[in-house]
Amino acid sequence: MGLLVVGSVALDSTRTPFGKVRDALGGTAVNFATAASYFTNVGLVAVVGSDFPRKHVEFLKRRGVDVSGLYFAEGKTFRYSSSFGYDLNDRTTIDTQLNVFEGFQPEIPEHLKRSEFVFLAPILPELQLSVLDQVESLKFSACDTMDFYIEGYRADLLKTIASVDAMIMNDSECRQLADEPNLVKASRVVLSMGPGIVIVKKGEHGALLFTSESCFSAPAYPCEAVFDPTGAGDAFAGGFMGHLARTGDLSDANIRRAVIYGTVMASFCVEQFSVAGMASLTQNDIDARYRDLKEISHFEL
Amino acid sequence: MGLLVVGSVALDSTRTPFGKVRDALGGTAVNFATAASYFTNVGLVAVVGSDFPRKHVEFLKRRGVDVSGLYFAEGKTFRYSSSFGYDLNDRTTIDTQLNVFEGFQPEIPEHLKRSEFVFLAPILPELQLSVLDQVESLKFSACDTMDFYIEGYRADLLKTIASVDAMIMNDSECRQLADEPNLVKASRVVLSMGPGIVIVKKGEHGALLFTSESCFSAPAYPCEAVFDPTGAGDAFAGGFMGHLARTGDLSDANIRRAVIYGTVMASFCVEQFSVAGMASLTQNDIDARYRDLKEISHFEL
Repeated sequence: MGLLVVGSVALDSTRTPFGKVRDALGGTAVNFATAASYFTNVGLVAVVGSDFPRKHVEFLKRRGVDVSGLYFAEGKTFRYSSSFGYDLNDRTTIDTQLNVFEGFQPEIPEHLKRSEFVFLAPILPELQLSVLDQVESLKFSACDTMDFYIEGYRADLLKTIASVDAMIMNDSECRQLADEPNLVKASRVVLSMGPGIVIVKKGEHGALLFTSESCFSAPAYPCEAVFDPTGAGDAFAGGFMGHLARTGDLSDANIRRAVIYGTVMASFCVEQFSVAGMASLTQNDIDARYRDLKEISHFEL
Repeated sequence: MGLLVVGSVALDSTRTPFGKVRDALGGTAVNFATAASYFTNVGLVAVVGSDFPRKHVEFLKRRGVDVSGLYFAEGKTFRYSSSFGYDLNDRTTIDTQLNVFEGFQPEIPEHLKRSEFVFLAPILPELQLSVLDQVESLKFSACDTMDFYIEGYRADLLKTIASVDAMIMNDSECRQLADEPNLVKASRVVLSMGPGIVIVKKGEHGALLFTSESCFSAPAYPCEAVFDPTGAGDAFAGGFMGHLARTGDLSDANIRRAVIYGTVMASFCVEQFSVAGMASLTQNDIDARYRDLKEISHFEL
């Protein structure tokens, strides 16, 4: 099948009450691809600067990620610096240096144009559309976005949203996009924009999946050791899309399963800085948490 | 079996973007008893002032609530005035007039002392303890509290918590009581204070149930028409305790069911002002939402 992700590769500096890292491997495409690599073959399209450490490329290769679409440009890699308070819910952005990411024009390598599953991480909506245009045998596409694009590029974003099969957003973005505080109503507004599936990520409160016919509420994994929430949403998307690409099954039951796999991957992501929590998992680790989530959400009629 | 609730009866003035009410029937014991009345016989112990409208007493009686413990004192009824913004998550307290509630000393009528199930709504922790002392054949007790008592009456509150079978709190109270931002850890801290069961109410994000052995994540009912969140937590507790008292079954599976019935009653509560959303339900209405929640949270292994 093949799964393609287009997004950012970054060097993250993060400070939480439990520690800090500087210039650690990060970015939406990295967290997505690392999570998805446990499920299927992933191709990554992104840009980094000439300062990007080779060891990070080697990490992605070891995870089986196809990095033939990882372009090295003159200049510095995208850097993102943030801090979290004690409760880890509110992120404070300290500094964003787009650097080479600012001029990013995603060019999909020929062999990756045949990817059937595509995830558009948050980049300029017109670039997201250009990716869809380049892909030749699309079976299922999903898109994430962020406040900056909802605010400043709404017209373009609506075109992208109308072109994808699924929107995956966090709760505040969903409310902002729909201009509606009630999440259930807001999700229906986003459905009316075109995609058949809307997924709302709620962090420690789990996720909601809406289609025109059904609603699914997924529990969060009850993590006691949340260390760094950075990348959790991208890891969620990676588990979700990875499972769909692995199975090729787009039934409602399987899409629900995919949401649970997304939840599992996000739970590993938050337990360590950067991609460390997802660096060396086994299928058993993943399946055990899947079964835990089944147990945790079970009740009888 | 018999279920007893001790708490407040109030006249609520509430303003939301969707409307406002003035001096409407409210209070923790009222919302609890109204919800629980669909499941079992409920006795209510509380105090009101001489200004309390007879029609509100008649409403409770029509719901089958035993009001022999509803005392009329000289003075005015407890009044609570609050407003909600557009997103309905943050309540702003405008005015609290304790009035006769300030001198409340719960005296349990003789026949209600034989209640086997007892719910202690948020009142002074030492008064909660005095209720437990008066009850003669206690099978299961649960307690709620609020920031004011956690802050100012901690020593007394810890005695009450050590004496009940279940603590039912909202998420911010749980974090505050445990002095721990991670909800899973915070809940374990509260478990270590004595109760075998800790339930964390998370409003639109559902509820969590913790015992020393297991964790259960209950979805919220996906309400599109949230009108007034006042009383939802008490309605939740009423459905929860009502189901337990109706069945007398304290197995893990049945406690999970009770959490879902609590969720159902809260969902009806928020759809209208005051107790209007819970005034005239049928068993079918309740069971339909229970089945909806099963469908909404179902996924396959």
